[in-house]
Amino acid sequence: MEFSHLGKDGNVRMVDVSEKNSTLRIAKAYGKINMKKQTIEAIINEKIKKGNVLTTAKIAGIMGSKKTSELIPMCHNIFISNIDIEFKVNEDNIEIISTVKTHSQTGVEMEALTAVSIAALTIYDMCKSVDKEMEITEVYLLEKSGGKSGKFIRSEKR
Amino acid sequence: MEFSHLGKDGNVRMVDVSEKNSTLRIAKAYGKINMKKQTIEAIINEKIKKGNVLTTAKIAGIMGSKKTSELIPMCHNIFISNIDIEFKVNEDNIEIISTVKTHSQTGVEMEALTAVSIAALTIYDMCKSVDKEMEITEVYLLEKSGGKSGKFIRSEKR
Amino acid sequence: MEFSHLGKDGNVRMVDVSEKNSTLRIAKAYGKINMKKQTIEAIINEKIKKGNVLTTAKIAGIMGSKKTSELIPMCHNIFISNIDIEFKVNEDNIEIISTVKTHSQTGVEMEALTAVSIAALTIYDMCKSVDKEMEITEVYLLEKSGGKSGKFIRSEKR
Amino acid sequence: MEFSHLGKDGNVRMVDVSEKNSTLRIAKAYGKINMKKQTIEAIINEKIKKGNVLTTAKIAGIMGSKKTSELIPMCHNIFISNIDIEFKVNEDNIEIISTVKTHSQTGVEMEALTAVSIAALTIYDMCKSVDKEMEITEVYLLEKSGGKSGKFIRSEKR
Amino acid sequence: MEFSHLGKDGNVRMVDVSEKNSTLRIAKAYGKINMKKQTIEAIINEKIKKGNVLTTAKIAGIMGSKKTSELIPMCHNIFISNIDIEFKVNEDNIEIISTVKTHSQTGVEMEALTAVSIAALTIYDMCKSVDKEMEITEVYLLEKSGGKSGKFIRSEKR
Amino acid sequence: MEFSHLGKDGNVRMVDVSEKNSTLRIAKAYGKINMKKQTIEAIINEKIKKGNVLTTAKIAGIMGSKKTSELIPMCHNIFISNIDIEFKVNEDNIEIISTVKTHSQTGVEMEALTAVSIAALTIYDMCKSVDKEMEITEVYLLEKSGGKSGKFIRSEKR
Repeated sequence: MEFSHLGKDGNVRMVDVSEKNSTLRIAKAYGKINMKKQTIEAIINEKIKKGNVLTTAKIAGIMGSKKTSELIPMCHNIFISNIDIEFKVNEDNIEIISTVKTHSQTGVEMEALTAVSIAALTIYDMCKSVDKEMEITEVYLLEKSGGKSGKFIRSEKR
Repeated sequence: MEFSHLGKDGNVRMVDVSEKNSTLRIAKAYGKINMKKQTIEAIINEKIKKGNVLTTAKIAGIMGSKKTSELIPMCHNIFISNIDIEFKVNEDNIEIISTVKTHSQTGVEMEALTAVSIAALTIYDMCKSVDKEMEITEVYLLEKSGGKSGKFIRSEKR
Repeated sequence: MEFSHLGKDGNVRMVDVSEKNSTLRIAKAYGKINMKKQTIEAIINEKIKKGNVLTTAKIAGIMGSKKTSELIPMCHNIFISNIDIEFKVNEDNIEIISTVKTHSQTGVEMEALTAVSIAALTIYDMCKSVDKEMEITEVYLLEKSGGKSGKFIRSEKR
Repeated sequence: MEFSHLGKDGNVRMVDVSEKNSTLRIAKAYGKINMKKQTIEAIINEKIKKGNVLTTAKIAGIMGSKKTSELIPMCHNIFISNIDIEFKVNEDNIEIISTVKTHSQTGVEMEALTAVSIAALTIYDMCKSVDKEMEITEVYLLEKSGGKSGKFIRSEKR
Repeated sequence: MEFSHLGKDGNVRMVDVSEKNSTLRIAKAYGKINMKKQTIEAIINEKIKKGNVLTTAKIAGIMGSKKTSELIPMCHNIFISNIDIEFKVNEDNIEIISTVKTHSQTGVEMEALTAVSIAALTIYDMCKSVDKEMEITEVYLLEKSGGKSGKFIRSEKR
Repeated sequence: MEFSHLGKDGNVRMVDVSEKNSTLRIAKAYGKINMKKQTIEAIINEKIKKGNVLTTAKIAGIMGSKKTSELIPMCHNIFISNIDIEFKVNEDNIEIISTVKTHSQTGVEMEALTAVSIAALTIYDMCKSVDKEMEITEVYLLEKSGGKSGKFIRSEKR
């Protein structure tokens, strides 16, 4: 059991990926934001354009994902081929799924998780004037593929 | 029930704070990252400097919080007087509490929530080589004060 | 006739605003993007959500405006109280008007012009797969107020 | 006629370039800033170093172009091989031409247009203390090459 | 003797300035870049515009100084009233002096030191094709004023 | 003797690397920060966690190095495979050595020098409450390899 971001002396370090192969790498992440039923109703109500809350959240999630290497200290700055974010609006929560692709020497788990987190925070910001008790929850990696460590699929969606 | 970030026609908008008073405003946010007991043990194990995972997460959370207005589209760029982040390491999770202060025309809820989210994502990044099933959860606002809307304290910590 | 950004020896310089008063300052800017009638029709056509092109452009313009001091070398980084962007969709062009407010020691002309420019570039990006001959044009300051130099209103809209 | 940035359901989306080939791609963009004759004279006057206004604008345009993917929501962050910006000072305007090169999976039209726009905004900022009625105009793509869609050359320079 | 950036338990922390007064604060920093005489001659030679190396360095130093709070983890993001950078070209080195002003709750030492460092790095970058053995040296604070701790003037220039 | 960043007319320019080969390129840089013996003692004293000053400086140096192309105007934005920073704590100074790797069309000297400079500035910031007379000195390139110009090793470590 070895932490790739900690050197043998325990100091924090970036992972040297200079010897890794450039391959197509894909990661998917999940997250959820719980909110009051009335908040959901207001979002989906015809009078309030639902598109605006979720469009803003999607744009913020995509732009935030592109900033991952500025936010997470040991992340590499990589070219990202695609970032997609989908929302499912339920009775008292919104589910968020991101998919990030790259063709590079390192994976995009953190980019996928950052996309979900920033999208969720943006939903929070857009709705906080009507609901201060929202909660961002269950943010995790769904799956990743590409790279030497092989495919990972989360055992259960909890 | 009115969304401050949506105009009367439903379009997204920034809130005009030019007529608000500059007052001391404080926000506290909470979050948690669940992980395997072995991952926690490895973090607190003497051989692996615990400080490095949490110090890196704290620095990332503080730096990320300063970037809130770049990440959340409708947030104002404000001078932040202080950002503090505390961690509580439990058997199979780490709790994160942030406190953000400003003396300005708008509050710092989003800065507090962003601090927690980026700190949690950084813990994920630091530990993901040994545990891919970590989960960021229960990210919410604990309390806020200052400003016209008065003090908010979350009714229960869930 | 003196260039405030050039010192007496002709070298570039930032304007020292440390002795100026903090007052409410407002600037409005205008811009237009010309495009084919079919492109406009596709944007306003029910099948293609008009909101998405313009919502994306509005968000980009607001976020870009917050970055003005990172983009324009001699601009001060200031707290912005509000950024608003409005669009008027015409037969073969879209007009863009931005309004930016601050309570600070320097004005927000550049923030207003940057908001318009980035919004226009984003419309270009969103539509460039169907129309490569769009043109961003007539980007200028409409008016500014606050500050020692008094109110400016552009003599005619050309 | 299909908008590559809008999915079938009309939602905004990034274009997935993971299956595209990495090829040399070049884009050229044009723009112009109109100003009073006296402003041009002051710029080219020996007492005021012309180099400083245009050098500052060139540097800002290059640095801004490197930030394109941070400014334009659906743009990919790509490695840029070169950004060049040339100015032609006329009697009452300055023409700006940018050339951007990349070896990647997507083109650099937006990088070329952003270079021109930020250079023009910077000229505006440098000269606004003597001329508030300047106008940025005729910003468009001159040509692009590389990539599957083949070479594009704007039919006429208007 | 107490480190303001380390809490009582030794953990890194931001300094809480919420109770400090907003006052005019000024800091000056110094730095030097040593290089070969031929490199200096090439810079000042009429054929190579001296202005361009130093103008580029000045712009970079000003823009870098505005980014101080993004670069130095525990720095506050503050409004900067002015950043000035002066160069003195000697036989085999260039001296750099920066002056930074703010009206805020914390000082600008780091902004002044960052201005000098980024200006020096930019000179290095501009000249590295002809001289790889340049050396940035003697970067220190010359003086600071404003704030509770009173005026500091470096006892001797080393 | 030709400055690669100045065109034939003396204007500043980015180097066009579109025809260069992508190869593994490595650069190492050195720097030193002088401080009082008591400051060093306080850092290494058991009561004050040494790790926190140096861990913060290491993280800042890595994050700053990733921002090189935003800070140094003519630098290319490149994918960086690894950034490592090592410290040697001496009686009255701390030595800093950075190593940066990339597989790209241009080298990473500036990234290595930026890593050292930002790490040194961060040490300054962390310790400035106890020692205002620290000095950053001897920042230079130790060696570089990869690329057409071949291996460079600084003749003496001065």
